[in-house]
Amino acid sequence: MSKIADVAARAGVSKATASRALTGRGYVSEKTRVRVAEAARELSYVAHSSATSLATGRTQTVGVVMPPVDRWFFAELLSGIQESLFALDYDLSLYGVPERSQTRERLFESILPRRRFDGIIAVGIQPSAHEIERLQRPGRPLVSVGPYSAGSSAVSIDDVAAARIATEHLIDLGHTAIAFVGGTTDAGALGYGDERRIDGYLAALGTAGLAGSARIADAAPTMSAGYEAAVGLLGDRRHRPTAIVAVCDEAAIGAVIAARRLGIAVPTELSVVGIDDHQHAELFALTTIRQSPRDQGHDAVRLLTDRMEDPDAPAELVAAASSLVVRGSTAVLR
Amino acid sequence: MSKIADVAARAGVSKATASRALTGRGYVSEKTRVRVAEAARELSYVAHSSATSLATGRTQTVGVVMPPVDRWFFAELLSGIQESLFALDYDLSLYGVPERSQTRERLFESILPRRRFDGIIAVGIQPSAHEIERLQRPGRPLVSVGPYSAGSSAVSIDDVAAARIATEHLIDLGHTAIAFVGGTTDAGALGYGDERRIDGYLAALGTAGLAGSARIADAAPTMSAGYEAAVGLLGDRRHRPTAIVAVCDEAAIGAVIAARRLGIAVPTELSVVGIDDHQHAELFALTTIRQSPRDQGHDAVRLLTDRMEDPDAPAELVAAASSLVVRGSTAVLR
Repeated sequence: MSKIADVAARAGVSKATASRALTGRGYVSEKTRVRVAEAARELSYVAHSSATSLATGRTQTVGVVMPPVDRWFFAELLSGIQESLFALDYDLSLYGVPERSQTRERLFESILPRRRFDGIIAVGIQPSAHEIERLQRPGRPLVSVGPYSAGSSAVSIDDVAAARIATEHLIDLGHTAIAFVGGTTDAGALGYGDERRIDGYLAALGTAGLAGSARIADAAPTMSAGYEAAVGLLGDRRHRPTAIVAVCDEAAIGAVIAARRLGIAVPTELSVVGIDDHQHAELFALTTIRQSPRDQGHDAVRLLTDRMEDPDAPAELVAAASSLVVRGSTAVLR
Repeated sequence: MSKIADVAARAGVSKATASRALTGRGYVSEKTRVRVAEAARELSYVAHSSATSLATGRTQTVGVVMPPVDRWFFAELLSGIQESLFALDYDLSLYGVPERSQTRERLFESILPRRRFDGIIAVGIQPSAHEIERLQRPGRPLVSVGPYSAGSSAVSIDDVAAARIATEHLIDLGHTAIAFVGGTTDAGALGYGDERRIDGYLAALGTAGLAGSARIADAAPTMSAGYEAAVGLLGDRRHRPTAIVAVCDEAAIGAVIAARRLGIAVPTELSVVGIDDHQHAELFALTTIRQSPRDQGHDAVRLLTDRMEDPDAPAELVAAASSLVVRGSTAVLR
């Protein structure tokens, strides 16, 4: 019997299940994951990456570089990464994404290159070719989540398609005065794929012959910024849009709240669609493009461990799933 | 000149400021913190704890055990801990608080004791005397945030006082039918000081001679749970409370949304007060008890580094600040 078969037998599961539990690839229940991990420990089973680790003096630690987790997406993603790393008995070393270029340079030039990790997951930043070169060295692969650069493996939804589908939903409902809330003119601010969402919005309008009616209200991807931007858009009765596509659900919820304050009924007088399927989307009956950052966290760990096992494999891009969820915040144009 | 004076001179700040920046004790702007850290690095300045570290083979790593960061409090707290550790050039190793007792036992019995840290910050859990004994060994102090046990250093607001002050505010406005939203009968669920908040609510009612009107609606500390609990409380016109104290702002915002849906005007027909001063509190004009989890994160790191420098110091409890912030969700009883 191979070692994995011993573990599977002891845990009372199939070899395939034991493998999924130990590698983090594919679904197993938390209960099974724990049972397999305990069987593996009792048998001193060492998975492939750990075996390599013993041979090469690896650290069993993965570095995660991530913006502040005060947004739903990052909190969920971190939970997914934590779950997968915990199941694989890896430690997670967390670094905040620096907001200013000087600190970013310090992090990428001085701190991260000196730390000992088996791999790095970089979230919500677009590492430059130079930064990738600094970080991704032999024996230490890099996986990006969200924005990515050629040469690094990455997990991301198709941001262009997400915003395009959201916009097309409104066009299908008869809307022609559709505004976009989100994006920023501050070039120094983090992008999180916002630009590509604007591209998707513009593409949908263009295809429908509505390019001339495009209207973008700058807003950070937060509830209060979405609120402020929507107040600006909705304040003037003569030029009021009948529908809003928001860069994310937090901004969309802010727009819904703004409409209520201004006495504009959602969805009869204003349709609003977001992107995320945030934990509060249902409470606000928000139509949205659903994605699962928790699953993206699992995918990122899987990509990373693939790289650890085969450092010479070419960069791989995982397109995470997204789909339209229609709730009560969008309706046919009256 | 002492070493710290060299660093201060190079950074162009006072010795006191340089010390605050390097130890994480007291406020300095992020800009100054970076400048001082860079001066320290250029001069190869090694702070006290780092000097100890070099002598004892410490890891420059702090373990942080924390519930999922999908709640504002934990996200903010983590940011505060990250800021202080980054300034001190410590790495942060993050562990999820296990939700089930079996995994918790595995974490506390098998994983954490074997890992090499210079210290541990345990958030939102009440470690048992046995767990503290397993974790807090010579050379590896433990600091709790939120619930704490005798024998461990801790940072916490006075949960009893916070809920008492929130309830007294409503009593002062003339309310007598005041319900509490939050707390849970599930003994296995994490407490986060919820029980002590219920104690504070009951104490205020008792002092005002209103003990008989106490009414507690179970709700997890989330927006949707607060919404559901409030729908239950407000649905029956005959027994409808005129005011609600919520265990946290997320639950309070859920209650405000529930009232709007039911056509009950806030604050004229219903007063609502929360605890936190959440990032969305202002958007919902929420009266609340303000606390700063980010500052509590700074405090936790300060307590921990104190312990690293003087392992024999007695356990210390830092009472974090909280204060009543009156906005538009509370009003005099009509």
